[in-house]
Amino acid sequence: MTRPYLLLSNDDGVNAPGLQFLIQALRPMADLLVVAPDGPRSGFSCSITSTQPLRYREVSSEPGLSVYACTGTPVDCVKLALNVLAERRPDMVIGGINHGDNASVNAHYSGTMGVATEGALQGLPAVAFSLCDFSPKADFTPLGPYLPRLVQQALDLHMQPFTCLNINFPLCSRFNGIRVCRMAKSRWEKEVEMCQHPFGPKYFWLVGECRELEPEAPDTDRWALAHGYVAITPVNLDVTHYGLKDALQGWSEDSPAAGQ
Amino acid sequence: MTRPYLLLSNDDGVNAPGLQFLIQALRPMADLLVVAPDGPRSGFSCSITSTQPLRYREVSSEPGLSVYACTGTPVDCVKLALNVLAERRPDMVIGGINHGDNASVNAHYSGTMGVATEGALQGLPAVAFSLCDFSPKADFTPLGPYLPRLVQQALDLHMQPFTCLNINFPLCSRFNGIRVCRMAKSRWEKEVEMCQHPFGPKYFWLVGECRELEPEAPDTDRWALAHGYVAITPVNLDVTHYGLKDALQGWSEDSPAAGQ
Repeated sequence: MTRPYLLLSNDDGVNAPGLQFLIQALRPMADLLVVAPDGPRSGFSCSITSTQPLRYREVSSEPGLSVYACTGTPVDCVKLALNVLAERRPDMVIGGINHGDNASVNAHYSGTMGVATEGALQGLPAVAFSLCDFSPKADFTPLGPYLPRLVQQALDLHMQPFTCLNINFPLCSRFNGIRVCRMAKSRWEKEVEMCQHPFGPKYFWLVGECRELEPEAPDTDRWALAHGYVAITPVNLDVTHYGLKDALQGWSEDSPAAGQ
Repeated sequence: MTRPYLLLSNDDGVNAPGLQFLIQALRPMADLLVVAPDGPRSGFSCSITSTQPLRYREVSSEPGLSVYACTGTPVDCVKLALNVLAERRPDMVIGGINHGDNASVNAHYSGTMGVATEGALQGLPAVAFSLCDFSPKADFTPLGPYLPRLVQQALDLHMQPFTCLNINFPLCSRFNGIRVCRMAKSRWEKEVEMCQHPFGPKYFWLVGECRELEPEAPDTDRWALAHGYVAITPVNLDVTHYGLKDALQGWSEDSPAAGQ
């Protein structure tokens, strides 16, 4: 039986401990192609690079593990991997492990989710892993037994195109279990902090507080994480709001001369 | 009655003709706050700037119209506007008019959609406008009568939070009408073109061809645009795949010691 061939990327950069931990956790079960940004790309979402050329360099190569650093965004890494660097079509695209959670609305800004999204848009099974700890020294050890098992479950699932899994791990040394969730509704507030350069004009840093809009709802990723559970949120890349689509059918119209 | 107060941004930059056309089309009906990137940010999706400070400058100010240029991404512009520059909470956030379509999967990469997404995540009604013409000299004239009417309809709709409209205009001098659509499934292929620097290593440009996966389906945005219709795709920012969530409930589990 052929070993799975997995494409890994992230948004914290090729040297990030989260990615290195993921590589070590998955090596026993799969051949790995790693194409990751050459530095931090947090908050890069699904951005792509169109006005600059992309470059890559080989970081290391050994049987079953090839690692490349790319100048682009997380999504660029996936595109470069699939179009140029992959030996064959990967069995799955995996983003992470991110330093910091990508639950609730954070998924929209996340480059780690960008990796999984791009995999899913390319018709491949795709998963994003994140740990609720922004520290560069985050301890990924508790995730060790979960990673190969969840990847194997996701492989066995034969996920449909335009679908991926957003998997977040709580910050604790032992997890209370696993919950399959929906995305919690939350809102970032007080997001801009003004500073004054000693000799110049004002400048601003993006900061903020994330306010939960439904903290008591027990079916959300936020609730699961707050209660020590691994949160698995299935994501649909067909973002059509079908309910609103039906409600707005009265807006459809033909111009008087339509059909001519 | 108070005039509507609309926040406008884009991803082609503050000087882009598409944004300038939008400003002129909406001025008669609303007070406008324009906070747009100081240069092109196409394909920036929902990316945010966390490692660099943001700055802005006032481009112009007159009664009912204030224009600012920001060093950041489209989403940064919305955050800066809502937290620092807006006189009051806007009645709607509008992205565009983008030079180039944002239908089907392109919505995931689009900075114009990033603007609308950020508005919707902030609980505001939000709309993205795009024209299927990438040219800097694109002719926006046919959109003129549609823009204030669609914005008024969207205002009257009282859209729910986490919801926005992705509105694409076909490239033709007269539209056949309007269709409320779903997002078509398509896939980008042959996305990377290799080049060789005369004195250096290889480099790569993102290019590609977008292959339609369901070109005959008459309820998609792609079909509408191909047949001369304005395509309105309602978008849900709760990207939970509820069908898959139900199917995966067997993955939920409690660890032996859970609940202690």
